[in-house]
Amino acid sequence: MNAESDNPDSYYAVIFSSQHGDDDDGYAETAQRMEELARQQPGFLGIETAHDAEGFGITVSYWRDLESIRNWKAQPEHLEAQTQGKSLWYSRYRLRIAKVEREYGWPS
Amino acid sequence: MNAESDNPDSYYAVIFSSQHGDDDDGYAETAQRMEELARQQPGFLGIETAHDAEGFGITVSYWRDLESIRNWKAQPEHLEAQTQGKSLWYSRYRLRIAKVEREYGWPS
Repeated sequence: MNAESDNPDSYYAVIFSSQHGDDDDGYAETAQRMEELARQQPGFLGIETAHDAEGFGITVSYWRDLESIRNWKAQPEHLEAQTQGKSLWYSRYRLRIAKVEREYGWPS
Repeated sequence: MNAESDNPDSYYAVIFSSQHGDDDDGYAETAQRMEELARQQPGFLGIETAHDAEGFGITVSYWRDLESIRNWKAQPEHLEAQTQGKSLWYSRYRLRIAKVEREYGWPS
């Protein structure tokens, strides 16, 4: 049985947390472009992002399934941005792929 | 079979995203106290948080299993803070519980 399709209502979160270094040249434009591109990918469900004043940021994007996440990771322009991220902007990052099992909110 | 114990290496993320309203009285102290308390809970693995200048914030806490998350949600002082959050600080929030299936980082 394929865990990716057990529950048609399930979806995935990609939790990306990063610490920025001193050089943010070009970061804002690239981040905006990546968000635009992500929104066009099949399986994209949503994105939330917050960056604090000390250069620490969390971006969580939501996806229909693991295949959508793999395809987005391999998108050519996104691959280039990932390389720039490591060489220019981030002093460290962590990426976690997690299956959303339940949720609630307020107002509901 | 209990999904919570299928894989002893798996763990959970609680993704809490919130928009703050105009009244932040007491918020910083309570948030700091809740982080201290969370760190003392059985099953607590870690926490990351970022708030932007527009009052949007993401906090992701990591836990060993769903039982740890349930116990923390029901902790008396935390319950009181949740009530305050809804009545005082948040104009909206969303909480998602997700099972971390893979991760990587840089530097690794």
